[in-house]
Amino acid sequence: MSKPIITFLTDFGLRDGYVASMKGVALSICPEAILIDISHEIPAQAIRSGAFVLASACTSFPRGAIHVAVVDPGVGTSRNAIIVRAADQLFIGPDNGLFSWVLRAAPEYEARSLANPAYRMQRVSPTFHGRDIFAPAAAHLARGAAFEDFGPPCTPLIEGWTTPASGIRHIQGEVIHIDRFGNAITNITSKDLDRLSTNGDPLIVWTAEHRIGPIERTYGDQPPGTVLALIGSLDHLEVAVTMGSCAHRLGLKIGDPVDIRC
Amino acid sequence: MSKPIITFLTDFGLRDGYVASMKGVALSICPEAILIDISHEIPAQAIRSGAFVLASACTSFPRGAIHVAVVDPGVGTSRNAIIVRAADQLFIGPDNGLFSWVLRAAPEYEARSLANPAYRMQRVSPTFHGRDIFAPAAAHLARGAAFEDFGPPCTPLIEGWTTPASGIRHIQGEVIHIDRFGNAITNITSKDLDRLSTNGDPLIVWTAEHRIGPIERTYGDQPPGTVLALIGSLDHLEVAVTMGSCAHRLGLKIGDPVDIRC
Amino acid sequence: MSKPIITFLTDFGLRDGYVASMKGVALSICPEAILIDISHEIPAQAIRSGAFVLASACTSFPRGAIHVAVVDPGVGTSRNAIIVRAADQLFIGPDNGLFSWVLRAAPEYEARSLANPAYRMQRVSPTFHGRDIFAPAAAHLARGAAFEDFGPPCTPLIEGWTTPASGIRHIQGEVIHIDRFGNAITNITSKDLDRLSTNGDPLIVWTAEHRIGPIERTYGDQPPGTVLALIGSLDHLEVAVTMGSCAHRLGLKIGDPVDIRC
Repeated sequence: MSKPIITFLTDFGLRDGYVASMKGVALSICPEAILIDISHEIPAQAIRSGAFVLASACTSFPRGAIHVAVVDPGVGTSRNAIIVRAADQLFIGPDNGLFSWVLRAAPEYEARSLANPAYRMQRVSPTFHGRDIFAPAAAHLARGAAFEDFGPPCTPLIEGWTTPASGIRHIQGEVIHIDRFGNAITNITSKDLDRLSTNGDPLIVWTAEHRIGPIERTYGDQPPGTVLALIGSLDHLEVAVTMGSCAHRLGLKIGDPVDIRC
Repeated sequence: MSKPIITFLTDFGLRDGYVASMKGVALSICPEAILIDISHEIPAQAIRSGAFVLASACTSFPRGAIHVAVVDPGVGTSRNAIIVRAADQLFIGPDNGLFSWVLRAAPEYEARSLANPAYRMQRVSPTFHGRDIFAPAAAHLARGAAFEDFGPPCTPLIEGWTTPASGIRHIQGEVIHIDRFGNAITNITSKDLDRLSTNGDPLIVWTAEHRIGPIERTYGDQPPGTVLALIGSLDHLEVAVTMGSCAHRLGLKIGDPVDIRC
Repeated sequence: MSKPIITFLTDFGLRDGYVASMKGVALSICPEAILIDISHEIPAQAIRSGAFVLASACTSFPRGAIHVAVVDPGVGTSRNAIIVRAADQLFIGPDNGLFSWVLRAAPEYEARSLANPAYRMQRVSPTFHGRDIFAPAAAHLARGAAFEDFGPPCTPLIEGWTTPASGIRHIQGEVIHIDRFGNAITNITSKDLDRLSTNGDPLIVWTAEHRIGPIERTYGDQPPGTVLALIGSLDHLEVAVTMGSCAHRLGLKIGDPVDIRC
């Protein structure tokens, strides 16, 4: 049987020992777990960005993978801590919309509050639930604790920004993530495009200030420096500059509108 | 039996192959070791910051964990290379104060010089002891080499900055680390606070230029943008800005004074 | 028997889930693989830098290690995807010069095109061959697929920048990598120096605008702030500033000339 996999996604960065503390706790409870980083460079407290990166990466992992996600502006307040089972994987973190993309894509899911004190540290810091609640929960699950044993059922938050506004001939979306290359990734997926009635008219992508153009197949089709829109490897519409940063070139940032009209 | 854990803390960054070279060497000697990064983003040659991050992360790891720490401005000079056993864990690196916080917290410890040539690479580069001395020592230890076999006993350096100056009604500390969120972490711990005789007067935190205020319980108690002082998850006093960077807001940097008066 | 090792080197950064997606795919195919990061902070599309970092790190890994390298400006175009066996290790990535340093150093090697559809994902994204072609190939190899089974033999590209121009009394090289400390690493190796006939004259290192001086043995021999040239731990000539950044001090960047004359 394969060893359990625990992944970690946070906005903690890699400068401090926060991520390592979570891993130390996990290995103390479940020494045979395989620990994988998804990202620790989510912009501070950017739930949308974290939600997107988590959803885009988790689909490459095998069934049973356990994902710990901590982008948690409300740590220390009354927001709930949850475990979710969706698409044969497990997700653990604050109930603040961080699992919105995962849950929007899942045909069905169930969630529990992390209420059982047996699955957290004895002493819980008010500011570091990643170490004291989320990592221990993941490691206990990896060791074989039953999903149902973590706490009572609950309804996880799914944010509205996972569903862009749309009509018959247009979609009104927004930038949800700027990737390392400066590509501006939007909340518009290929499924949203399928719902448009184009009558064969070309789909044109617009930002607030620029006409980007029709949707291309790949970066490689254009000379360096070209601004273009394409459905990226993650099935989301993105605005990119070949061999350059779209975020710098067009000044795009998270939350900026991106529309499609035909 | 659990597999041996080797952690790595350096100021090498992740741009180059330096960290990977250390890991390749470790796996060549001890293929079953579990390799975990604590941090490689310690500011270049910032021993205080490295000492703090190491001490704060190592306590989350199980007994027997082996920690390799390399923040080493004196590489290639005559500073000693050591292995230390403290709190049932092992620490390997240069003897330059990097283990000061770990050793200050440990009830007892013992140290050896890394003198045995059997536990280093045959050819030692004058500029890369992480790969040629420290990683091999950790991997040989993980494979079962005896602590006493590494070299003669020695006395490790513990720097004075682990003990802030204090009187009956004040403590004179300093910033030792800026974390990723911009929180300014000081060398004042909750134990230092316990030694004050407050007579019930509130403890007020000051930087050179600002009155920060009393010590709060959590970030969540204040509106965004509030400057506050609290005992963080690592049991050190830190100066923070809710939902923002204290380092940017107050211009704090490593070495700046932070005082407590009552 | 030891578990298979798969390393990853990319210019993807760690902000997004791209690297984690590659690892998820690898673990889905070969759950027992040990996954190690070499670097994901190669400057975007900087093949020279990636080629150098890969070559410098891989030599520390044991025989049989599998290295996945993806710095791939041509993804989605017709550039070939290859697997190379050299120095008892395996290298997988685009055929764009990324293996130039590895292959220049290897006494012999053989290469295959990654043509076999059994060893890639069923659906290959035009923009993410790391996840859909390179990681699966590495994992299938780790599971025991035969080298010869990946595709037909091919001749990998070795770029000319691995061989600096030289005469009897001078070498004309260039900066190929700026490391985290700001050291400017050149394409001149100690072997290139051995070919000069110095007649006992000192070797003097020059940049376009500065006389750096003779080649030193270590950083530690000079006071802080000194500009100096030395053969680094990776056997390449580098220009450095003790306790500081040479790239900032001298304004050096990748591609800038560095010469040696005697």
